[in-house]
Amino acid sequence: MCRKMGAGGTARRLTAAGPHKRYTVRMPTTQRIPHLHAVVLAGGSGTRFWPLSRELAPKQFVKIFGGVSLITRAVLRVAGMACDGGIHVLTNAHLLDELRNHLKSQPGIADMPIDYLAEPTPRNTAAAIALAAAYLLKLDPEAVMVVLPSDHLLEDGERWERTLRVAVGLAREGRLVTLGLTPTSPETGYGYIRMGAEIPGHTEAGVIGHEVIAFVEKPDRVTAEGFLTTGEHLWNSGMLVTRADAVLRELERAGERAATPDSIDSATIAATARVIGVTDPSTWAGENARAAFAALPSVPFDKAALEVSNQVAVVPADLDWSDVGSLLALESVSAPDDRGNTLAGNVVDIDSHDSIVYSADRLVATLGLKDIIVVDTADATLVAAKNRAQDVRLVVEALRVVGAREIVESRSSLRPWGSWTMLVKGEGFQVKTIDVLPGHRLSLQSHAHRSEHWIVVEGTARVTVDDATFEVGANESTYLPLGAVHRLENAGTDSLRIVEIAVGDYLGEDDIVRYEDDWAR
Amino acid sequence: MCRKMGAGGTARRLTAAGPHKRYTVRMPTTQRIPHLHAVVLAGGSGTRFWPLSRELAPKQFVKIFGGVSLITRAVLRVAGMACDGGIHVLTNAHLLDELRNHLKSQPGIADMPIDYLAEPTPRNTAAAIALAAAYLLKLDPEAVMVVLPSDHLLEDGERWERTLRVAVGLAREGRLVTLGLTPTSPETGYGYIRMGAEIPGHTEAGVIGHEVIAFVEKPDRVTAEGFLTTGEHLWNSGMLVTRADAVLRELERAGERAATPDSIDSATIAATARVIGVTDPSTWAGENARAAFAALPSVPFDKAALEVSNQVAVVPADLDWSDVGSLLALESVSAPDDRGNTLAGNVVDIDSHDSIVYSADRLVATLGLKDIIVVDTADATLVAAKNRAQDVRLVVEALRVVGAREIVESRSSLRPWGSWTMLVKGEGFQVKTIDVLPGHRLSLQSHAHRSEHWIVVEGTARVTVDDATFEVGANESTYLPLGAVHRLENAGTDSLRIVEIAVGDYLGEDDIVRYEDDWAR
Repeated sequence: MCRKMGAGGTARRLTAAGPHKRYTVRMPTTQRIPHLHAVVLAGGSGTRFWPLSRELAPKQFVKIFGGVSLITRAVLRVAGMACDGGIHVLTNAHLLDELRNHLKSQPGIADMPIDYLAEPTPRNTAAAIALAAAYLLKLDPEAVMVVLPSDHLLEDGERWERTLRVAVGLAREGRLVTLGLTPTSPETGYGYIRMGAEIPGHTEAGVIGHEVIAFVEKPDRVTAEGFLTTGEHLWNSGMLVTRADAVLRELERAGERAATPDSIDSATIAATARVIGVTDPSTWAGENARAAFAALPSVPFDKAALEVSNQVAVVPADLDWSDVGSLLALESVSAPDDRGNTLAGNVVDIDSHDSIVYSADRLVATLGLKDIIVVDTADATLVAAKNRAQDVRLVVEALRVVGAREIVESRSSLRPWGSWTMLVKGEGFQVKTIDVLPGHRLSLQSHAHRSEHWIVVEGTARVTVDDATFEVGANESTYLPLGAVHRLENAGTDSLRIVEIAVGDYLGEDDIVRYEDDWAR
Repeated sequence: MCRKMGAGGTARRLTAAGPHKRYTVRMPTTQRIPHLHAVVLAGGSGTRFWPLSRELAPKQFVKIFGGVSLITRAVLRVAGMACDGGIHVLTNAHLLDELRNHLKSQPGIADMPIDYLAEPTPRNTAAAIALAAAYLLKLDPEAVMVVLPSDHLLEDGERWERTLRVAVGLAREGRLVTLGLTPTSPETGYGYIRMGAEIPGHTEAGVIGHEVIAFVEKPDRVTAEGFLTTGEHLWNSGMLVTRADAVLRELERAGERAATPDSIDSATIAATARVIGVTDPSTWAGENARAAFAALPSVPFDKAALEVSNQVAVVPADLDWSDVGSLLALESVSAPDDRGNTLAGNVVDIDSHDSIVYSADRLVATLGLKDIIVVDTADATLVAAKNRAQDVRLVVEALRVVGAREIVESRSSLRPWGSWTMLVKGEGFQVKTIDVLPGHRLSLQSHAHRSEHWIVVEGTARVTVDDATFEVGANESTYLPLGAVHRLENAGTDSLRIVEIAVGDYLGEDDIVRYEDDWAR
């Protein structure tokens, strides 16, 4: 893997949902970089962007910025530069299936070969990056990794590529290279990097590598305002470019020098990562590997390595960026109107100011609002004061206390074979639409508590009921009695959509016995 | 009609949705009053209470105050006191079917004999009251009518009944008797009545009839504040008690004396009402009657008669009252919490103050709001600044401009046979649930552009398809091919609910041919 270089892609724009500043989605345009591996970090709890994000569809899945999800943007950002087979997505076990289903449903990358790594337990970035480094090192001793958060908006394009090339050049010399963003406001919640001298020989058309003087975590307001004026300080983007072996080496050195606080055992992180030696971190053969990983300290890579290493560098990245840290990021979905409102979707407003109103589908009408956020989804609506956008997690916590399903998943659910949407849960029955991708099929299954009626409304279904298999065309229906072993398949090349009416005394998703499944569920 | 008196009802409380101040729904408890006819005014455009009200379900239909609709309250308010057959509901032709279906669906009055009068064109209260008076006079020359708006909240009970009895006593002497409410705030949008001397002989346990010195329409703020302190001024409730013949007589006298402005031809209103002589104002036999009514001036009864008559009186009604003039009235749905919020339905709030959040069903979460109204329904959500509650009509006007269906009707629709709810309108198909009342059936019908699949999920359906009639039980289905003449019936005594999947190239409600209909549609 990764010894060969593929050809560059062709430039084209994906359809965007609306005006979107400079966050236009671009397809790969450049030359691949030998040995470059992308490690896309895709975790998240889905709390800060609720109700657009859910536990099973965190912020990275949200498709409202230019019509594709943030993680799709992250993958496309490096797809043209990474070596062949060099796209690795690191997530947690809990999200792995949802993530695969999501990326498979995304235009432009559905057929891209993506390598999935899943942590059995989230252990923060030090353990995650060490694990990825050890894994890559086995694939490619010369591996250079670019670690990319997938929950940010970043300006893509030629300037990004230039920045990455300069960073890779520094990384090849053994540096841990951070990408720093020019601050545009005195943020007190971010980490900052204080730039030092330029590093000779690492420059390309205005992008220049620098030494790092210091990392400054969450400065106070006055300090942050000072940083804005000196121009020496950059926001720490969380993006990192480094050789895989340098990651482990620098963690080990940090341990040797006991340079980090007692609670951070950097050497153990590196040693454990080397030992786990996972060849396929999506399966985690054996309890030992899981337990060893779970026992690692949960610390950021910045603390465990960057802040104590003498091999760090920074490349100032003069790129538009947003951390999509709260629903306020919706302001970049479309250009604000002349009253400062961002209105997107099925929205009618009278006389509001400086407000954000987003509705995916249902009608939302607003009247005389000021500094309010309204986010509407099929099953839940949030209305919040703009200055409380950071506290949406409090809402999610309150909903968790009352057991609200709306924090876990939305009314629609992606599956490896397609998707379904719940239309109504009634007394003794429920109604869904089910979409099956061409060439795919659901598992061979049966239910103990419900019968099902299937009405095909688009395409042709191949249906198995016990020993019979037959076709059901559009505007035809079939019935699956209680206990029948059945399967739904789209054997054609067009869309298949059915309406399913389930009738029974218990209708939970867990009433299912699978006899055969293309996805080994 | 109305020569006999029925027995009084039995006191009981209907289930209320929550604490509701003193607006508890009561069943009739008192003796009938000979010749007393209730004329319940039920028009309305459904704009000020949107999205809870719609064009086809105006404010009177809203069921959130104590679990029954405002018009049901109005009917129950007089049901025990009006003479037998003396409940008349006056609406407009546009709303007549919806109103019948609505009242039929309401607990406590579904089986009550109600007489419907429908204006072909809305012409304000002078024409409406004159029409009702002429109509009642033919039924009962001694008729005393109590005219009741149906879009108000009013405290029912013994005090209300006492008030009405005193008013009826005055009315029998030929007076036009208004009911006046004690003002609780300096409203500038209301009409006021200045009380004069007590009228001897018209008193009952603290309720005392008074002369009227003057009517004052919409005073300025300073004047309204003065009214609050003197105690001589009452809010004009719009409730009127009068003999039917006195209505026409006083309109004629106003005409003779030319006491009203030129634009108000009170005598013509009375004369036309007498001539139309409708025996059944829900059918309006002949174009002449319609045209004559439509040609009447559109003026309030107050201007056309009350303000110029020397036969007026007022009975101060010391009753809790709200005109439900805007969504602010939602504050009476339940007691406010200790932050001043009224939260009703599926609502989770963090740190809001003085806000109103109402959700019928879907989850609404709110965070840090102040003086905001959120009203959520199945198909539309309104978020408004509280101080703009009066301007909800602007939203409805804006929605009308863009042709939004959500101002006309909600996702559910009542029918004489039951109701349906739209679950989804998809490309080439739509899904509804349909509920049929026991003993009822839909029309015998066919469609030119859609086939239908019916799945029974509760009860048993009797289905006719062309020449065949058969039963379809729960968890069974049937298919209605394009063009088939079909009918759905609930021949049993239990509920019947089906899921209907319609498939076709055109799915509008107007694709229907009715061959036979229990409601002659």
